[in-house]
Amino acid sequence: MRDVAIIGIGMTDFGELWRESLRDIFVKAALEAMDDAGVDHLDSLIVGSMGTGLFTGQEHIGSMMADYLGQLPVSASRVESACASGGVALRNGFFEVASGMSDIVLCGGVEKMTDVSGAQATYALAAASDRDYEAFHGVTFPGLYAMIATAHMHRYGTTREDLARVAVKNHANGMLNPHAQYHMNITVDQVINSVKVADPLNILDCSPISDGAAAVILCPLDMAGKFSKKPVVKIAASASATDSIALYQRKDITWLNATAVAAEKAYKAAGVTPGDIDFAEVHDCFTISEICILEALGVVEKGKGGEATRNGLTARDGKFPVNVSGGLKSKGHPVGATGIAQVYEVVTQLRGEAGKRQLNNPRRGLTQNMGGSGGSALVHILEVL
Amino acid sequence: MRDVAIIGIGMTDFGELWRESLRDIFVKAALEAMDDAGVDHLDSLIVGSMGTGLFTGQEHIGSMMADYLGQLPVSASRVESACASGGVALRNGFFEVASGMSDIVLCGGVEKMTDVSGAQATYALAAASDRDYEAFHGVTFPGLYAMIATAHMHRYGTTREDLARVAVKNHANGMLNPHAQYHMNITVDQVINSVKVADPLNILDCSPISDGAAAVILCPLDMAGKFSKKPVVKIAASASATDSIALYQRKDITWLNATAVAAEKAYKAAGVTPGDIDFAEVHDCFTISEICILEALGVVEKGKGGEATRNGLTARDGKFPVNVSGGLKSKGHPVGATGIAQVYEVVTQLRGEAGKRQLNNPRRGLTQNMGGSGGSALVHILEVL
Repeated sequence: MRDVAIIGIGMTDFGELWRESLRDIFVKAALEAMDDAGVDHLDSLIVGSMGTGLFTGQEHIGSMMADYLGQLPVSASRVESACASGGVALRNGFFEVASGMSDIVLCGGVEKMTDVSGAQATYALAAASDRDYEAFHGVTFPGLYAMIATAHMHRYGTTREDLARVAVKNHANGMLNPHAQYHMNITVDQVINSVKVADPLNILDCSPISDGAAAVILCPLDMAGKFSKKPVVKIAASASATDSIALYQRKDITWLNATAVAAEKAYKAAGVTPGDIDFAEVHDCFTISEICILEALGVVEKGKGGEATRNGLTARDGKFPVNVSGGLKSKGHPVGATGIAQVYEVVTQLRGEAGKRQLNNPRRGLTQNMGGSGGSALVHILEVL
Repeated sequence: MRDVAIIGIGMTDFGELWRESLRDIFVKAALEAMDDAGVDHLDSLIVGSMGTGLFTGQEHIGSMMADYLGQLPVSASRVESACASGGVALRNGFFEVASGMSDIVLCGGVEKMTDVSGAQATYALAAASDRDYEAFHGVTFPGLYAMIATAHMHRYGTTREDLARVAVKNHANGMLNPHAQYHMNITVDQVINSVKVADPLNILDCSPISDGAAAVILCPLDMAGKFSKKPVVKIAASASATDSIALYQRKDITWLNATAVAAEKAYKAAGVTPGDIDFAEVHDCFTISEICILEALGVVEKGKGGEATRNGLTARDGKFPVNVSGGLKSKGHPVGATGIAQVYEVVTQLRGEAGKRQLNNPRRGLTQNMGGSGGSALVHILEVL
């Protein structure tokens, strides 16, 4: 098995990109990644997307993107695991390069979510839940995460303010990210007094509906020097796990078991512990998500996720910065693109290219990307050489 | 890179499975494959499906199927390349085992297409075309393939009867396949006089709308003997290529270039020529498709695909039997399942388990699975050891 490096990265701004189509934004991110890597051809293209069918009426986007990127007749396909689709794209590219079947592989993610009505977007997103047993009974994602939040508050004493602080932190981080959808500082009071969505979650606890794309280029580690002159980032671990996609089937709805299992596998594969990770990009689709994820990753003990933001652990200048990109909350959440955008941020930080939001010489970063209410999760550990 | 074997196969009947849900049929095929392989756990599950979002409102089916198969927290994901989704599932599983990351991988395919109206099914299937430049202008798949057929007839003298003979042959083969949707012999006259769909294609030139699932189990070749006692089938080659998903962008609409490129790669990887292949399962979504595919695979010269059925080359007792399973035309075409069902047939034949439709001691078979009007194609070569 060959070691695998990330040698190129690209992403579009995230937001309401009404003047650009699905194929436009993907190609933009992909070309940026290819330029960054210094490659002009691909052996394979993998695109992660959750819902192009329901959002845009278009499937078969592997071929479409290969064509519009000028790469026909390259091998191309799409992968999907709801909001973890981007993470799956990276993992499949990792297999393809590690196996020796391909050398230069583009792993991308894309979603165009703002061309439909809010009701249609809610219908499309609910396809990540168990439609028969959840969505058809009226429960959509804010409702599912509200149940998780309520249980966490009841069991562990997590407060309304703890939830709000996650949003406040991530919006502060997003102020420094030119690609972020929202450049807007918010306060705990504003979160708590914003419009109710599903008690206890308000609108400012929720990540937005977004358009956007991101892409990275992989190659065998021992070829990395032939292309880019930038610091080489190695994929030290790729891990994936699942849980029931329906929340009601889980023993403990506050525990994200797919994330916990994937993290454990990833630490083992990379030969590290949570203490060896310098920073992380995690899947804060709702404020409560980031709290539960920190626990599942083993960064804090079970039940202590709320404290992590309160005591500054996860702040940009804290001991374990989380979502310095602004996270899904402020950067935006074009669902299929998110997993790759997380990798974009970690590579940018590891290369020392993050400008005003640059962390102090990080060597190892983690991405955690999940689908639905945690029914699937991918954890990747990246190291700069 | 490790060699990869197929040690288990399973599939449901194809047809209108109104009493069973999406998850029911997938689990049925998957359990049969696991039983056949003699394994009770998986390291990874990959499910190919084109349009579960548009057909059933459900995405995120990797996790769902992992759960209903009793395999949580196994790594799981879905792959998609329109009607070639099953082929992509096999290819991704091949990478995963070849890379050394996983030992026991289930590659499956599923589609539940008959629970929606005909108009909805047409809308969902048109997501495999270039929606903006084809479907939105009123061209759906029968129309696209009708243009290919018209061009082929004009350029190469292919006749209406040549098209019909493909359907007649595949229906005759399907009579012997207990899983086939149609057990119904048809004649050339019946095809030619059946209801017009898009001139020159009639209803009996078209594969049907179907429900169904299929699954295979992969493991490293050197572990195969530990599990099943059946003949071991090796994946000698896995190849994939793309073409524009829109027909109007191709230089020659009668030439399936993605199939031609994938086939060339596959022959090279397996170290064989078309003459070394004993039989094939190919993507006869319309009668004209099989004719063009035979040319792109290099089985016959360009323009000679019509003759292949006429002179008996592709008959069950011909020199190069094609679609002994009945093909998409008679067996049925639950789009995401098709690529894996082709592999099911080839393995069944290579093992000598095909009953009344058993070929005479075949050693090497080929599958060709494609998306849309040929925008993506996968070719696999399988050999029995």
